[in-house]
Amino acid sequence: MMQDKNIPYKIYLEENEMPDKWYNMRADMKNKPAPLLNPETHEPMTFDDLRPVFCDELVKQELNDTDAYIEIPEEIRNFYKMYRPSPLVRAYCLEEKLQTPAKIYYKFEGNNTSGSHKLNSAIAQAYYAKKQGLKGVTTETGAGQWGTALSMACSYFDLDCQVYMVKVSYEQKPFRREVMRTYGASVTPSPSTTTNVGRKILEQHPGTTGSLGCAISEAVEAASSQEGYRYVLGSVLNQVMLHQSIIGLETKAALDKYGIVPDMIIGCAGGGSNLGGLIAPFMGEKLRGERDYEFVAVEPASCPSFTRGKFAYDFCDTGMVCPLAKMYTLGSGFIPSANHAGGLRYHGMSTTLSQLYHDKLMRAVSVEQTSVFEAAEQFARVEGILPAPESSHAIRVAIDEALKCKETGEEKTIVFGLTGTGYFDMFAYEKFHNGEMTDYIPTEEDLQAGFNGLPTI
Amino acid sequence: MMQDKNIPYKIYLEENEMPDKWYNMRADMKNKPAPLLNPETHEPMTFDDLRPVFCDELVKQELNDTDAYIEIPEEIRNFYKMYRPSPLVRAYCLEEKLQTPAKIYYKFEGNNTSGSHKLNSAIAQAYYAKKQGLKGVTTETGAGQWGTALSMACSYFDLDCQVYMVKVSYEQKPFRREVMRTYGASVTPSPSTTTNVGRKILEQHPGTTGSLGCAISEAVEAASSQEGYRYVLGSVLNQVMLHQSIIGLETKAALDKYGIVPDMIIGCAGGGSNLGGLIAPFMGEKLRGERDYEFVAVEPASCPSFTRGKFAYDFCDTGMVCPLAKMYTLGSGFIPSANHAGGLRYHGMSTTLSQLYHDKLMRAVSVEQTSVFEAAEQFARVEGILPAPESSHAIRVAIDEALKCKETGEEKTIVFGLTGTGYFDMFAYEKFHNGEMTDYIPTEEDLQAGFNGLPTI
Repeated sequence: MMQDKNIPYKIYLEENEMPDKWYNMRADMKNKPAPLLNPETHEPMTFDDLRPVFCDELVKQELNDTDAYIEIPEEIRNFYKMYRPSPLVRAYCLEEKLQTPAKIYYKFEGNNTSGSHKLNSAIAQAYYAKKQGLKGVTTETGAGQWGTALSMACSYFDLDCQVYMVKVSYEQKPFRREVMRTYGASVTPSPSTTTNVGRKILEQHPGTTGSLGCAISEAVEAASSQEGYRYVLGSVLNQVMLHQSIIGLETKAALDKYGIVPDMIIGCAGGGSNLGGLIAPFMGEKLRGERDYEFVAVEPASCPSFTRGKFAYDFCDTGMVCPLAKMYTLGSGFIPSANHAGGLRYHGMSTTLSQLYHDKLMRAVSVEQTSVFEAAEQFARVEGILPAPESSHAIRVAIDEALKCKETGEEKTIVFGLTGTGYFDMFAYEKFHNGEMTDYIPTEEDLQAGFNGLPTI
Repeated sequence: MMQDKNIPYKIYLEENEMPDKWYNMRADMKNKPAPLLNPETHEPMTFDDLRPVFCDELVKQELNDTDAYIEIPEEIRNFYKMYRPSPLVRAYCLEEKLQTPAKIYYKFEGNNTSGSHKLNSAIAQAYYAKKQGLKGVTTETGAGQWGTALSMACSYFDLDCQVYMVKVSYEQKPFRREVMRTYGASVTPSPSTTTNVGRKILEQHPGTTGSLGCAISEAVEAASSQEGYRYVLGSVLNQVMLHQSIIGLETKAALDKYGIVPDMIIGCAGGGSNLGGLIAPFMGEKLRGERDYEFVAVEPASCPSFTRGKFAYDFCDTGMVCPLAKMYTLGSGFIPSANHAGGLRYHGMSTTLSQLYHDKLMRAVSVEQTSVFEAAEQFARVEGILPAPESSHAIRVAIDEALKCKETGEEKTIVFGLTGTGYFDMFAYEKFHNGEMTDYIPTEEDLQAGFNGLPTI
C-alpha cells in the first residue's frame, strides 16, 4: 500500500478540536426552504402549532432559518465525546485496489452501538425533551437504526422511549428489537391496534406489513395522546439536519488540519439527514461564494425521490396527520417494492435539500441494489468495514467516480459518508451471496399512482 | 458527569506512537511454560514436528521463549492502522452511575468488523502464510469471532480461508456465516463428513452439535491433507498471545502518556489470548520486579478451567491429533452445558497464563451468566457500547471491584479489556430480557468425568 506519509489512515480530532456549535445551512440560503403548512388550513405552521408535537427548543430550531451557528449544549458535547469524533479515513486500500489516481476519504459514523450517524440527533432530541421535563418520547423506526439510537439516548437521560417499528422490519430484524430492549425501550410493530390511525390502516389493509409513513402517524398520535410525551423524528426535519452538521463540521476540521480540499462530496439520501449533515459546512462556503464543490446525493433506483419525484407540497406521513412539506416526493402513498433490501425508502426528502437540489446546487443519481451490494462487498474486502446497505449507495458512486478518474487521469479528492455498519442486514447480504437479489425500477405507472395522491395546493 | 479535564474520554495514540514490536512475556518468565509434547512419544515438539501444521515463522514464534521483543512486519503494521489504535476509554458515566471513587478504564477492541480483538492475530497469521507462499489456511470457529477475523485477514492477502464452525453456532448464528462469506471464506458446519475425524465423531455421536475441540481436529486434518495449506488457531497458543500483546502495549502507552498507573487489570479468559495480550507489558514489569499490579482472569462458572481445573498435560482437541499442552484444564472431553450463552467454552487455557497462575502471579474468579448479562446491560445503558457476552465477564468483575472501592473509599485505578461487541449475540440477550436465562455450575461429578479423560504422563 502506498501511504502518503503526511496523511494518516484515520484522522481523529482531539477533544478540544471538536465543534461546539452546529451549523445551520438555511441561514446562508438565498432561497429558503418553503415553510411547513397546516394540513387543514394550508397556513404556515407556527411555533404554537408545532409545540404540541415537538419539544419547544426543537420547534425553535425547526423554524430558525436565520442563525448560522447554534451552540451545542455541554451535556450533548459530553455525550458526543463518548463516541465522537468519528474517524475520517483515507481509503488507501480501496484506491490501490481500483488503481485510481483519485484520493478517497470516508467519514465513518458506524463506530457506536446504534451502528449509524442517527445517534447525533437522537441525543440532542432526548436532551431537549429531558430539559423540558418530559416523561418520554415516541418515534417510528424502519430498519431500526434510528430506534436503536433513540433508545440509547433515552436510556442515558432516563426518559421513556416508545418505538413504533415498521412491522416487516420488526419481524425480519428481531435482533434490532432486542438491542432497543437492552436500552429499556418498548417496541411495537406498526401498524398496531394501540392507535386510532393504526386500527384504521389495519381495517383498510388487513395484511399490510407497514411503512415508515404509517409508523410516523402512529407515533405522532401516541405522543399527543399521552401527558408529558412528545414525538421525535430521525430524518427529514431541519432540526435533524442541524444536529447532523456535526458530521460535516468534523470532516471539514479534519481536512483543514491536513490542508486537504475535496472536489466532490457524496452521500446516500433517504430523508436526507446524513447527506445534509455531511455537506453542511461545505455547502455553506458554496452558498457564500467562497469555494465551489460538487455535491452528489445517491438514492436507490427503487425509491427515486430526487431523480424521478416531483417538487411539491406533500404529506409527510401516510395518515396525513403531519404538516405538509414542500419537497421532492413520490407521493405519501408510494411504497417501494418489497424486494428492496436497504433503508432509504422514505417517499419524500428534506425540504432544505430539496430546495438546494431545485436550485441546482447539488446533483443526484440513483443506483440499483445489486450494484450497491457489489460495491459493499468490494469495499468490505479491502477496507475491512462491513457497510450498511444504505451507506453502500454512496460507496457505489464513490467507486464509479474513482474509476472515471482512472480513465481521465484526474487526481480528484472524493469524500463520502459511510453512515453505518451492516451487522443487522445479513439477510440482504445472504440473498446477494445466493444470487437471489433482484433489481426493481418503478414504472411510470407506479410513479403516477403515487403522484395522484399529492394534495392540491 | 465529572470529567477530569486532564484526561479525555477516549485516549487515542497517534500513528507514530503505535508499537512496532510485539512483546513476548515468556522471555521474562523465570518458570517458562512447559513445552508442547508429541501425543505419541511424549517428547517435546520441535520446529520440524510443528511445521507440517503451522507456518514456519509462526512455529518459530511458538517456540521462542527468549526474545522479549519481536518486530511487527510493516505489512501488518499497515493493516493495524486501518482499525488501530483502539481507544482506551475512561468510563466516566459508569463511575458516576456506580458512585465509586474508583477510576475505570477499558480498552475497547470491538471497533472493527470482526467485532473483537481476534483480528490482531488473524492478520499476523495470514501475513506469514502468504509470505510462505501458501494457498490458504484452515481453522475452526465457535461463536464466529475468530472465523470472521480470519476471513477478513485472508481476503486482504488473497488467501483461501476454510472455516470449520461448531454446528450449533453455524445454525444459531447464520449471520456470522454470511459475514464470513462476504469476505470470501468457505464455512463448513462441524462435525462434518469432509474429514475422517469428523465422520468418526458423527458415527459415535450422531446427534452432536459439535464442540471447539472437535472443530479443531477437523481443521487440522483439512490443513494437512491439502497441498499448500496450514492450520491457524485464534487463541491458546503462544504465538497468538504474542500478537495480542499489541492490546497491552497500546494500553500502556496510552496510560503512560497521561501518567496513569493502574492498580488492577481485568480480562475475560477463554483460551487466554485477550487477557494474555492485555496484561503482557504490565506482567513484564512485574516479572522483572519493576512494579506490582493485580491481574484478574474472569471465567464463566460453567467452564471454570482456572478456578476448578487441573494443572496437567492434556489434549488440545477432541480428536487427540494435536500436541499435548500443560495447562489448567477440565479435560478435552468436557463440554459446557448447552444453556451457556457466551464464548469462553474451551476446556483448557493458554500454557503461559497457566504457568503464571500456577506461580500465583495472577488470580482468577468465576462468574455466573445471569450476573454477567446484568453487568452487560448496565454497562450498555451508560457507556453506550453493546458488549459481547465474553467481554461482559470482565465488566462484571470491574463493576464488583468498583463497588468494593465504594465501600472502602479506595480510589483504585481499574483497567479492563472490552474485547468485543454483542451484535451477533442477541439471542442470548433476548433470553435474558425474557427471564429465560439460567445459571449452571458443573457438579463435582461433571468435572470428574472430564478429568478421567486426562492422559497419564
